[in-house]
Amino acid sequence: MPVNLAPPDPAGLHPVPGVELGWTQAGIRKPGRKDLLVVRVAAGGHLGAVFTRNRFCAAPVLVARAHLEACAAAGASPRLLVINTGCANAGTGAAGVADAQRSCAQLAALMDCQAHEVLPFSTGVIMEPLPLQRLIDGLPAAAARLAPDQWREAAEAIMTTDTVPKAVSRQIVVDGHTVTITGIAKGSGMIHPDMATMLGFIATDAPLAMPVLQPLVRRVADQSFNCITVDGDTSTNDAFVLIASGQAPLAPIATVDDPRLPRLEAAITEVARVLAQAIVRDGEGATKFIEVLVQGARDAAEARTVANAIALSPLVKTAFFASDPNLGRILAAIGKAGIADLDADQVRLFLDDVAVARDGGRDPDYREADGQRVMAQAEIRVRVELGRGAAQTVLWTCDLSHEYVSINADYRS
Amino acid sequence: MPVNLAPPDPAGLHPVPGVELGWTQAGIRKPGRKDLLVVRVAAGGHLGAVFTRNRFCAAPVLVARAHLEACAAAGASPRLLVINTGCANAGTGAAGVADAQRSCAQLAALMDCQAHEVLPFSTGVIMEPLPLQRLIDGLPAAAARLAPDQWREAAEAIMTTDTVPKAVSRQIVVDGHTVTITGIAKGSGMIHPDMATMLGFIATDAPLAMPVLQPLVRRVADQSFNCITVDGDTSTNDAFVLIASGQAPLAPIATVDDPRLPRLEAAITEVARVLAQAIVRDGEGATKFIEVLVQGARDAAEARTVANAIALSPLVKTAFFASDPNLGRILAAIGKAGIADLDADQVRLFLDDVAVARDGGRDPDYREADGQRVMAQAEIRVRVELGRGAAQTVLWTCDLSHEYVSINADYRS
Repeated sequence: MPVNLAPPDPAGLHPVPGVELGWTQAGIRKPGRKDLLVVRVAAGGHLGAVFTRNRFCAAPVLVARAHLEACAAAGASPRLLVINTGCANAGTGAAGVADAQRSCAQLAALMDCQAHEVLPFSTGVIMEPLPLQRLIDGLPAAAARLAPDQWREAAEAIMTTDTVPKAVSRQIVVDGHTVTITGIAKGSGMIHPDMATMLGFIATDAPLAMPVLQPLVRRVADQSFNCITVDGDTSTNDAFVLIASGQAPLAPIATVDDPRLPRLEAAITEVARVLAQAIVRDGEGATKFIEVLVQGARDAAEARTVANAIALSPLVKTAFFASDPNLGRILAAIGKAGIADLDADQVRLFLDDVAVARDGGRDPDYREADGQRVMAQAEIRVRVELGRGAAQTVLWTCDLSHEYVSINADYRS
Repeated sequence: MPVNLAPPDPAGLHPVPGVELGWTQAGIRKPGRKDLLVVRVAAGGHLGAVFTRNRFCAAPVLVARAHLEACAAAGASPRLLVINTGCANAGTGAAGVADAQRSCAQLAALMDCQAHEVLPFSTGVIMEPLPLQRLIDGLPAAAARLAPDQWREAAEAIMTTDTVPKAVSRQIVVDGHTVTITGIAKGSGMIHPDMATMLGFIATDAPLAMPVLQPLVRRVADQSFNCITVDGDTSTNDAFVLIASGQAPLAPIATVDDPRLPRLEAAITEVARVLAQAIVRDGEGATKFIEVLVQGARDAAEARTVANAIALSPLVKTAFFASDPNLGRILAAIGKAGIADLDADQVRLFLDDVAVARDGGRDPDYREADGQRVMAQAEIRVRVELGRGAAQTVLWTCDLSHEYVSINADYRS
């Protein structure tokens, strides 16, 4: 049961000039579901990407990185993405890399471009071979459907344990011209911030040049996909791609001090945040959406450490599931976070507007009924004030329910 | 359902000369269960202890540390332990410290000793005030029961979500004299290695002098309680105490190079390991006992990092619960452990005797049926060979089941 997350209204998903999407049911893992997506970027577009840091990163991640380098060396930009669900093509060794390369070569032949202009992405079960022939057989049908208005279907085509397709769209006016930003993402389990989380694809027609685009992708990821965690498990296949088709009738945004960049970045970041939060709202077994805000830290890393300790604690997460204000578990999580000189007496804990703890213990004004009221909500903010400095961070997470165990005990069957 | 863990046979729990135990039903949290334990050490005994590093450590931990220092300053040794279950007296601020001090003072008055010769220990719910009067009212009854043959009852008196009391006893012969080592422990959730985990008390009549005892406690903890994890949550109340009553008719063991020490240390470590493993076998909701052995690391810290990543992964733990050889999740956990220069191609993964992965992917000889066979067992060894060096570590953990969620969603009710 996703938390306050409805499927996207296709009418609200604005096409991005210069970007087309096509899908098919390739039967990668199971028949009868959209599981193969092709994205085509018109000539002149640019693309930035960040990938997982998992050392067992998937074959498509290795190949996508190599193809991005080959494009850069050739002064070209990737023209196509090929994305399958149902198999992660991770933990598949040299054979997996060959399979990913082959899928790119096949699509390149079909679309009359170079293999290194195709970036592959996969998601699904780890350490099982990619059903390459089924993927290849599906490419013509996916390519035949390429059209700008397929964002909703594209979101469906990359789902695994997701229960709701995730897509969002925004438009802003720059220099008198409407600029569109539309994105999709998938992810529900094996979600923990480390570069980007699972698959996210955002496209804009803004003419962002490469020197601006790649650092922008990283900043956007840090403010969105890198702020979420479901279960602390970093995927082998995480990737976040920002496509700038450049088809809006604007002068290129080619320098980091371009005065149009901040508003555009804010809008892109908002799209990324909505998608990132959608992943948490649809987190495996989620019944609650939890924002963990840690303030008063010496630096951002320290704030992140404490936020992680809270957001990853199974005891804290099961208490949220139970709507049980067993809030001492949050203190225990803060205490174990690893800040050796943390003074427990300086820490303050709030649940939404309710002051829970101070001076090393329960706030004198805290009433169990107040904690109970907030814990019963579907959306809860945990705020921690460490009293050590001015740095802060935010993490979005969900609770740990019976359903999480069921989903992950049954995932392959 | 604990994993291959039976209640201890009282006949097998050898009394330790110089150590007496007394318990009562004090109604700390609920009536009708043993929840207060007093341990008395005869004059001449010594005691070493290690405590949680959680920065929100409980009031009794603060007081126990202070009393140990006061004893050391006075050239004395603690004579009494007072241990309650039902309330952790953690996250209780200055009032909690005063309560812990008061419980020591009351027992000291009753037993005619100094307050700093009493060490307090608590376990149970965090951030709720200690029902001090009920604890104080229970002390005379517990003291009246003090006897050397109450180890089984003592193990029961410190249980919280434990389903099985944990006690073990060994005897070895040193210099022709029988030396006894008997210990108890409690713990089932909020279990993660960091000093000691939850409460463990081991007593021996071996005459271990203080310069030998304290470093010994740390080494034993590192080889036992620090090798277990249930849910990654480090308790606020962890403590491990080793009592050396000194009543065995042996010359004192006063130097670290005493030739009798290695055998004694091995026996004490074995008792501690059995207790530590008992905590995992009775881990909240456990249906499987998992040994994670990481070898070929550059150093022990690196091995521990990888072992933790595997043992703490909810995806790995739910796969064990499901008996599902979805072993790519283990590769993903190794990959996210944070070893930046890990070469995935050098990593080998084994499940008991089954070679699962090598060269970055599935072992060519791996058959799903073999993985399935091992996953169906109640006890499983995961062995990872990193191929980077000679260091290794072991961790013991359990699976993540529906029951874990149920227990922790309902704990306070």
